[in-house]
Amino acid sequence: MISGISASPGIVFGKALLFKEKKIKINKLKISKKNIEKEIKKFLKARKKSEIQINKIKIQAKKKFGKKKSSIFESHILILQDEEFEKEIINLIKKKKISAEFAVEKTIQKQIKTLENIQDEYLKNRSIDIRDIGNRLLQNILNIKFIDLNNITKKIILITNDLTPSQTAQMNLKKVIGFATNLGGRTSHTSIMARSLEIPAIVGIKNITKKVKNNDFLILDSINNKIIINPTKENIKKFKKEKKIYIKNQKKLISLTNLSARTKDGKKIKIGSNIGSYDDAVKSKKYGSEFIGLYRTEFLFMGRNNFPSEEEQFQAYKAVAKKMIGKKIVIRTMDIGGDKNLSYMNFPKEENPFLGWRAIRVSIDKTNILHDQLIAILRASAFGKFKIIFPMIISIEEIKFLKKEIKKIKKELQRKKINFDKKIKLGVMIETPASAIISKHLAKEVDFFSIGTNDLTQYTLAVDRGNDRISQLYQTMSPSVLYLIKKVIKASHKEKKITGICGELASNKKYIALLIGMGIDELSMSSISIPEIKNIIRKINFMKARKLAKKILKQPTVKKVKKLIQKFNKKEDLL
Amino acid sequence: MISGISASPGIVFGKALLFKEKKIKINKLKISKKNIEKEIKKFLKARKKSEIQINKIKIQAKKKFGKKKSSIFESHILILQDEEFEKEIINLIKKKKISAEFAVEKTIQKQIKTLENIQDEYLKNRSIDIRDIGNRLLQNILNIKFIDLNNITKKIILITNDLTPSQTAQMNLKKVIGFATNLGGRTSHTSIMARSLEIPAIVGIKNITKKVKNNDFLILDSINNKIIINPTKENIKKFKKEKKIYIKNQKKLISLTNLSARTKDGKKIKIGSNIGSYDDAVKSKKYGSEFIGLYRTEFLFMGRNNFPSEEEQFQAYKAVAKKMIGKKIVIRTMDIGGDKNLSYMNFPKEENPFLGWRAIRVSIDKTNILHDQLIAILRASAFGKFKIIFPMIISIEEIKFLKKEIKKIKKELQRKKINFDKKIKLGVMIETPASAIISKHLAKEVDFFSIGTNDLTQYTLAVDRGNDRISQLYQTMSPSVLYLIKKVIKASHKEKKITGICGELASNKKYIALLIGMGIDELSMSSISIPEIKNIIRKINFMKARKLAKKILKQPTVKKVKKLIQKFNKKEDLL
Repeated sequence: MISGISASPGIVFGKALLFKEKKIKINKLKISKKNIEKEIKKFLKARKKSEIQINKIKIQAKKKFGKKKSSIFESHILILQDEEFEKEIINLIKKKKISAEFAVEKTIQKQIKTLENIQDEYLKNRSIDIRDIGNRLLQNILNIKFIDLNNITKKIILITNDLTPSQTAQMNLKKVIGFATNLGGRTSHTSIMARSLEIPAIVGIKNITKKVKNNDFLILDSINNKIIINPTKENIKKFKKEKKIYIKNQKKLISLTNLSARTKDGKKIKIGSNIGSYDDAVKSKKYGSEFIGLYRTEFLFMGRNNFPSEEEQFQAYKAVAKKMIGKKIVIRTMDIGGDKNLSYMNFPKEENPFLGWRAIRVSIDKTNILHDQLIAILRASAFGKFKIIFPMIISIEEIKFLKKEIKKIKKELQRKKINFDKKIKLGVMIETPASAIISKHLAKEVDFFSIGTNDLTQYTLAVDRGNDRISQLYQTMSPSVLYLIKKVIKASHKEKKITGICGELASNKKYIALLIGMGIDELSMSSISIPEIKNIIRKINFMKARKLAKKILKQPTVKKVKKLIQKFNKKEDLL
Repeated sequence: MISGISASPGIVFGKALLFKEKKIKINKLKISKKNIEKEIKKFLKARKKSEIQINKIKIQAKKKFGKKKSSIFESHILILQDEEFEKEIINLIKKKKISAEFAVEKTIQKQIKTLENIQDEYLKNRSIDIRDIGNRLLQNILNIKFIDLNNITKKIILITNDLTPSQTAQMNLKKVIGFATNLGGRTSHTSIMARSLEIPAIVGIKNITKKVKNNDFLILDSINNKIIINPTKENIKKFKKEKKIYIKNQKKLISLTNLSARTKDGKKIKIGSNIGSYDDAVKSKKYGSEFIGLYRTEFLFMGRNNFPSEEEQFQAYKAVAKKMIGKKIVIRTMDIGGDKNLSYMNFPKEENPFLGWRAIRVSIDKTNILHDQLIAILRASAFGKFKIIFPMIISIEEIKFLKKEIKKIKKELQRKKINFDKKIKLGVMIETPASAIISKHLAKEVDFFSIGTNDLTQYTLAVDRGNDRISQLYQTMSPSVLYLIKKVIKASHKEKKITGICGELASNKKYIALLIGMGIDELSMSSISIPEIKNIIRKINFMKARKLAKKILKQPTVKKVKKLIQKFNKKEDLL
């Protein structure tokens, strides 16, 4: 039985599709004498195969680009056929008793090194030719085939190391009924996406890509955090029964979704949805969402070839407003940059994009983009209850600038006799340490805060939340992060304003009691999580949670924080 | 007259060496009819030149790699000679009336696009071949020559856009007598380096590379923030006189260096040096440095092919200790990763290296590196007054781990009867928001703090300090950063421990009064800045500075902070 981190709930049955990144694994162990001939044959066979492949490409290229240009492929074939190259590889296999792939890699590396030692960029770049020839050889030796994620045609459970936003963008998601990945935690891209798409997922399994083979039949049960490979018939039967119970429970929970999230002692918490599209807005209703706590507008800008016009944006925002019939919608100006670029916009190559030109920084520099979006939102505000929120704020100056721009646009709209909500509220995403620290000043400038705990954690700890090498350091329960969250809540309440959380922390069952104890007013999350979170809140005693929070804020370590929470959750029977 | 940001003081006279990055500028304007033939000839001449160049390379390559491998260059020549390619370019020049370089670029771009549209990585990569051929053609059309920074043979003033650490590493710095750059501020890499090498520099001039031509004679005066191109004789005379006065003043200041830095009302501030090597330690003495506030050990690990052994490290640290005769030396465990990699160590490719595996994170993961360094430092502590400081700390857990490791090593050394300072003090670099926030807890675990204001600002504001696109957002005077600095000082004083600053802020004349008013105990900087900073401190009234700090910590914006400081500095006649 395999388990990891349940990222999105559900039980599914289906065939595995193993998506491996282009990673070539080289066996570096000594081979036995009797295998020498085998390895040499492997190399020669792979070389032949590579020649045939390049020849095919050459013929295609000739048709497309003419003879002379296809001569590059000719030269690659010549390099493959080079006797010295052959001799060197075969010698290595024989004398050093190493595998064919290791011998090829060593030879290629040697040649690349020689090329790269030359003080001439043109020559240096030729090492790429050598590398490509080498990679083709290695792939053919190791018999690696790569799957095209565009072309998934049957329903599958996707097994992979991890997924980047760009990989997901290319994927045909309609056929994916479940995810299981080696890497990632609850806040990783795959997890957030899985919840938003309501696809069951287990992440952070470490070696799932090694345990599962292509076309294995799987049970993926992210309720009980279990994956079973090629189960027995009895097992399938058992899990189908579990699935039935789960669906029944879900239905029961969903039937309670219209109950509000009120603690045992009567403290009301508003529960909302994070959405990226109209479809998400539709979905939010079935889970008992009370408002849209975060409308991520950047998805409107992605996967296309030009900026959406003001009119297009207006129509999109209006559609969401009409769907939500009078419910509050916190709409965020686009957060591009960082790990989300637009193909049709020139982004600078940055050493550290998360510390770079992203979100409000782009909007402030490119005021035409900002204006189009603000006009569209203001126009849509005639059809629904929008609140505007700004991402990545670090100073009062930025907010003052944005308020001035909105004032100008309002005047312009009034002049043109276009309707809009004259009292539209403005808020700040608290996702940088700077904004949390100056929240006292910010609370005087805006109407509400929403804490983006993912980014806030990342910047406070200086830990990229996507960097697997240091994932153990990414701890939202760090005393430093909790201190900032408390500081923000306090600052907002002092000015009689509200603070919500729209980061992944808002839907983490374990920490709900703590957040409520800290005085949070709203929680916004993937809709699918709402029924369960509401149910937990109804079991919490607010006064006890407050005491817990007070105690926790004095703790010096994550370990102590987590221990106290665990104890509390158990004692109060919350989970 | 040209000016920018004075980064390192001095006045120098010399010829300009213009180092331009490999940037090809294409003239996209329509050409007149009579220039058509001229442009065609330009293209044909450049093509011929490119062929000759590649042929030369081919002959070299043949000798080195054998005939078959050199066939790549053969194929590049064939592509250059392709009649279709020629026809397309000449047609574009004739029909679209565009420059030779624009025609080449268009043709190359078209071919690259066709290649890149193919769903095959191997084919896609061939676009690099095409790009390289294109670049060579463009360089030859535009007659661009690139300067090899390795081979500077005469004394020059280097004029460039900006310098990266890796460019500097390759440079022959002995011949550079001055720097002037388009980009950068006081905390940029070039500035820090210039100060450490005592080379006069003006940075952030925006268009210096456009104003200065190669071999122009320059006066670079970073005292008065002026660059004069091809000055008159009288001008040279005048500036030589200024230089004499400056040197005289410097001597006078230096003669006062042994006076301590004590405010008018008697508050003593300890002033130290940031060093990276033994040579820096030697230099520190002539400027009246009272201790080494930051010994950056990573330079010992850079520019070589393997890790320095424990013994090598011991010898290096001991040499510094002996030089400093009993003066305190704050030695930092190596801060690699981020923008400083080691060629002989496998660093992961990171999306955001500044939020990645760097500094103490590397040391904690690779305990053998940590142990070697700690043993070396402890052994050296028998010969001088070392204090150990740890970079990039974000949790109490890390400090507890490090203390445990040191305890183990001490036991081991005792067992082996090796001498060391049994009471060696430990400190934390405060350079992440997390460490500043938990300073209250950290102050109970260690003996002192040193604030790295550069990184602290970067993480608090989520602004990469090397990213020119958002440099206006990088503000150490942000109320959020000042809040954290104050928090750290307070936390340390409560536990009767001290806090220093070793970031660039420590030597920024304008802000000294504020820092002292905030209660800072020590300042450490490039040695060259010490005389002037000491002199300013002697003019400060501590009680007034305290009042200033109190007022400043209430301000909501950078602008208001800066205004109050300016007013204070003027009123107290500090600068």
